[in-house]
Amino acid sequence: MKVDGKHIRSIWLEPDGWTVSAIDQRLLPHDFVVARLTTCDAAADAIRSMLVRGAPLIGATAAYGMALARRADSSDAALDRAYQKLIATRPTAINLKWALDEMRRLLRPLPPPQRTAAAYARAGDIAEEDIAINQGIGRHGLALIEAIAASKKPGERVNVLTHCNAGWLATVDWGTATAPIYLAHERGHNIHVWVDETRPRNQGASLTAWELGHHGVPHTVIPDNTGGHLMQHGMVDLVITGTDRVTANGDVCNKIGTYLKALAAQDNGVPFYVALPSPTIDFSVDDGIAEIPIEQRGAEEVTDMTGRTADGRIETVRIVPAGSPVANYAFDVTPARLVTGLITERGVLKADRAALAAAFPERTADAAE
Amino acid sequence: MKVDGKHIRSIWLEPDGWTVSAIDQRLLPHDFVVARLTTCDAAADAIRSMLVRGAPLIGATAAYGMALARRADSSDAALDRAYQKLIATRPTAINLKWALDEMRRLLRPLPPPQRTAAAYARAGDIAEEDIAINQGIGRHGLALIEAIAASKKPGERVNVLTHCNAGWLATVDWGTATAPIYLAHERGHNIHVWVDETRPRNQGASLTAWELGHHGVPHTVIPDNTGGHLMQHGMVDLVITGTDRVTANGDVCNKIGTYLKALAAQDNGVPFYVALPSPTIDFSVDDGIAEIPIEQRGAEEVTDMTGRTADGRIETVRIVPAGSPVANYAFDVTPARLVTGLITERGVLKADRAALAAAFPERTADAAE
Repeated sequence: MKVDGKHIRSIWLEPDGWTVSAIDQRLLPHDFVVARLTTCDAAADAIRSMLVRGAPLIGATAAYGMALARRADSSDAALDRAYQKLIATRPTAINLKWALDEMRRLLRPLPPPQRTAAAYARAGDIAEEDIAINQGIGRHGLALIEAIAASKKPGERVNVLTHCNAGWLATVDWGTATAPIYLAHERGHNIHVWVDETRPRNQGASLTAWELGHHGVPHTVIPDNTGGHLMQHGMVDLVITGTDRVTANGDVCNKIGTYLKALAAQDNGVPFYVALPSPTIDFSVDDGIAEIPIEQRGAEEVTDMTGRTADGRIETVRIVPAGSPVANYAFDVTPARLVTGLITERGVLKADRAALAAAFPERTADAAE
Repeated sequence: MKVDGKHIRSIWLEPDGWTVSAIDQRLLPHDFVVARLTTCDAAADAIRSMLVRGAPLIGATAAYGMALARRADSSDAALDRAYQKLIATRPTAINLKWALDEMRRLLRPLPPPQRTAAAYARAGDIAEEDIAINQGIGRHGLALIEAIAASKKPGERVNVLTHCNAGWLATVDWGTATAPIYLAHERGHNIHVWVDETRPRNQGASLTAWELGHHGVPHTVIPDNTGGHLMQHGMVDLVITGTDRVTANGDVCNKIGTYLKALAAQDNGVPFYVALPSPTIDFSVDDGIAEIPIEQRGAEEVTDMTGRTADGRIETVRIVPAGSPVANYAFDVTPARLVTGLITERGVLKADRAALAAAFPERTADAAE
């Protein structure tokens, strides 16, 4: 989508044919800096440090990381080392494992001299497939937005609430939760987005607000605490979030706090949708609350806040008293019963085992193997 | 409660008999500074700027503000001006109106020369009454905690989640939501508090964590997004929050985000209690969602964050992109159906009209007048 009026993606291959470039998302919204990734280690660090983040973008970055590793050393041992290095970066990200498995399955049977070119080609295809998937999500989600718009006065605004950043920055382009929003905006619908700040890392305030602003989509940043009040007062027409992992029975693992918005949506009769590319579905897991381990991240994400001072310096300030312990669970699980529908590239599905299995028969056959 | 091992209150009369001192809560947790209030304007500014905050402390500060105004000018006109100035500071705070009405009712019939002494005496009594009320809340809430402790293994910790700061800093001493916690801690119970950060003003991270830490109560600061996940995993035994206003039918107006925690508590079978001094009950309002106007505060509370840098400077940083609009609703309303009980100085009451009317017959008689 657009930055300063120009179309850009979150990750791309440089014209040299091997250097991978990615937006350094840690510096947003204050500075727009492109990082050049030239080794597998750099790709792994980019994932671990959240230079890149978002399940689909992590998958694409990992695929490019496997390609960068091949360029340095095409042996089987190096292939395994790269796989292990990359998979260890973010244990909750199912797309990461999917992309790495895909790359290893492709590369392992090839003679080592052919592996580098094949790896770059497949990584590029994974990026293009992500865009195509998101465009599919956009079309199916657009129909939901248009149905709501049709129930309103002509031109009356449609209010979407979103949590975290499942925007184009979290993917290669278009985003998942934002694809229907960008498409509705481009079709001329009067759409407005309530952007949850998304503590502790502020991905909503720093990334979603930044990308919507650059693309010209009307939006308002709100503290995470606000959504329930807005829904009580009819100020939210639908919720669309992304997800890091959906289980076989439709439970949704997503950024911490998503569950609270789903509860508020249910309590106020607001439809709660989750947008996802199908690789995000993990058919090997059933009960999300019982089975998905929730990553705990560093205390400094909660205690410290980085931003720009009035005179332009980037500073990090501590907001919690010294000596107060902190807990930082990165994700929570929204039970399928709270999810109105899953917006996938194959349509809007009921969040249950039968609907997911029917829409992705080839994946459930995989899981049964 | 204790600060640096010494007992202190949030507001007190200096030995000179007329200067009012209060902790400047805007500087916590970084700096402990006492502000000296010597005029009604200073008291109004202290309330408006949130140098003092919390419904009961606002009431006590307003009462002292009326006393400070009397000292400068004891006329009827000055009485009305002080009332108007103070009531305009925080339209949602019912204790503010209660304290000001109480002062005006007391002072108006008195000859002007007697008003100053009477005003100081009544303000002092309002402060003492607040402490007595909170101790009552503490005793009734302690019984709830002890019942939970009795259902656990001996010595197993009881986990309380709280939102915002309804601690001793929000009152004159003891706090409302924290009174049962402090009392349980002093009785030797193994109690631990999950402290919601409470965006956008961070009263949990900056005030509740500070006061619990100074008093030695085990606690953990969490982002507001976290409570639902903790409740799903059995890590919260009960929720206790404060409130700015309870309606005649038991709806609870409190810091934005309280409603989301009440929803999560209900969804997970966790008891959700609200602690309040009875002046917080507004028998003139029924439906909290429809009838209570929700104050909107400045965007900078959301966009900017103040804290201490690693080298000790206090800095304010902007965390939202320039040009992104912001909404900042200060409160939300938790419907009575989500409230397990209201912990008042007269016992733990069901959150409904009949229970409130039965417990406070003299107040409902007032409202019916």
